[in-house]
Amino acid sequence: MAAVLTPLDASLSPDRTRMASHCRWLLENGCNGLAVLGTTGEANSFSVDERMDLLDHLIEDGIPGNTLLPGTGCCAVPDTVRLTRKAMELGAGGVLMLPPFYYKNVSDDGVFAAYADVIEQVGDARLKVYLYHFPQMSGVALGPVLIERLLKQYPDTIAGMKDSSGNFSNMVHNTNTFPGFAVISGSDEFLLPLLKEGGAGCITAVSNVAVSIAAEVHAAWAAGDLEDAERAQARLTLVRRAISAYPLTAALKEILARHGDDDDWRRVRPPLRNLAAAEASDVALALDLLGFEPPPLP
Amino acid sequence: MAAVLTPLDASLSPDRTRMASHCRWLLENGCNGLAVLGTTGEANSFSVDERMDLLDHLIEDGIPGNTLLPGTGCCAVPDTVRLTRKAMELGAGGVLMLPPFYYKNVSDDGVFAAYADVIEQVGDARLKVYLYHFPQMSGVALGPVLIERLLKQYPDTIAGMKDSSGNFSNMVHNTNTFPGFAVISGSDEFLLPLLKEGGAGCITAVSNVAVSIAAEVHAAWAAGDLEDAERAQARLTLVRRAISAYPLTAALKEILARHGDDDDWRRVRPPLRNLAAAEASDVALALDLLGFEPPPLP
Repeated sequence: MAAVLTPLDASLSPDRTRMASHCRWLLENGCNGLAVLGTTGEANSFSVDERMDLLDHLIEDGIPGNTLLPGTGCCAVPDTVRLTRKAMELGAGGVLMLPPFYYKNVSDDGVFAAYADVIEQVGDARLKVYLYHFPQMSGVALGPVLIERLLKQYPDTIAGMKDSSGNFSNMVHNTNTFPGFAVISGSDEFLLPLLKEGGAGCITAVSNVAVSIAAEVHAAWAAGDLEDAERAQARLTLVRRAISAYPLTAALKEILARHGDDDDWRRVRPPLRNLAAAEASDVALALDLLGFEPPPLP
Repeated sequence: MAAVLTPLDASLSPDRTRMASHCRWLLENGCNGLAVLGTTGEANSFSVDERMDLLDHLIEDGIPGNTLLPGTGCCAVPDTVRLTRKAMELGAGGVLMLPPFYYKNVSDDGVFAAYADVIEQVGDARLKVYLYHFPQMSGVALGPVLIERLLKQYPDTIAGMKDSSGNFSNMVHNTNTFPGFAVISGSDEFLLPLLKEGGAGCITAVSNVAVSIAAEVHAAWAAGDLEDAERAQARLTLVRRAISAYPLTAALKEILARHGDDDDWRRVRPPLRNLAAAEASDVALALDLLGFEPPPLP
């Protein structure tokens, strides 16, 4: 799955047309689903209303609801409830939910209460929550004790976790400890290693451009062609490392702007900024040396 | 100034009546102003609409607009703009503005752009912005290079900074470097030390209960009674240390619940939690040993 970028219009608002085209292109090139409005998608730089409008527009513009895994976790429980209800209303396959992330050093008990309040207030038996563990960004870690407690209380709702900590042993531990709990890597680098350990796959920023390589890893692994899978994974890892040396959202938008010869793709909303000119040419050169290009545009 | 607590009703929504009484009581006992809806006030656990309603209610309930310094800084620029406009409309003396706090390792350039976008979009010459530097909570530091750039671009708007870093030399540095820029400590401990260095005072959580001691420090210092000021400061520091060993918002609500014999004061919204029973009696005992009690209720 891609952690889908949000293209912006001249007023730095989400550009619904470019967004729908990008989503379609990702699905056509091997994405199994669209994790829209997450960290990479600059979700937290948009108001709740802007996010709800974007979700509505994606459906109106023909993106199937069941391909969506929208990010819905906000600092304030009522905001998370509104966004999660909207995702359910649109038939999303699940939601990716950050814990409230302003207050730090909060207790597991407090984070549990926040998730429980959201689940109770949404009150929909179809809800599938994927927890979002990204302590470097959110400052709030979701450890195994909390996961166990949530799974015990809401076994049909807590479906898995995106782990963006970069800590592979944590992913393996949770995969082994909680059968049926889908552990998903936030880094491309662990796609194949985690599949081998019984994990569910990855949701990544780099998939916005390298979607077909990630799809190749997954397909080769599913077909039992481990050697092909390893080669595709090695290539995916090289591409990821070349890109992730730069601020990720800006670097990916830069790559897509060059790929489609479309300067508008570069826009980011503050506090993010575009790459400096030297960074932009460095990343382009690195990808060129790797012989990497995103899949052709329609 | 107090970083005012937000009392909650049974549905964990802001309790407007108790909030207005608390604000009045703070003003009557020596507060120069009310920093409502900041970190201590659980602002980031409320939706933007809940925050705007609470501000409206305070005015309707008789709190003078010019005593308010509302927190308005959100992750998303449009949310910060809405809240800041509301504060201006109600005649607030200024606003306390966090930078966008989800994305980490953002550049000064990105933080500058976020503040600039807010100031331009609010577009009100009367606006006074107090920056809010609290890197331990927000993860986004506001250093001298950024302050200088903001002051240069918006000399009539950027009025000062609440510094909750606990780094006293940073407060002194900014006081000395930027004449007319009001540096305000986020900790009671530095009230007198910072006044002596030319700083503006403090905005603190502990003032919700120890308001009259902080007022005593300020009054003695203003009257030139340095010995009295030092004694009051020493007492304030002891009270602060006794309380801040516990989660601060919950501990302060616990103290006010006991003081007014009003269990409802204890309510916090997730992810915050109440003190454990042992913590609650520990903090009460510590304050008892110090002979500390909040000012009498009306």
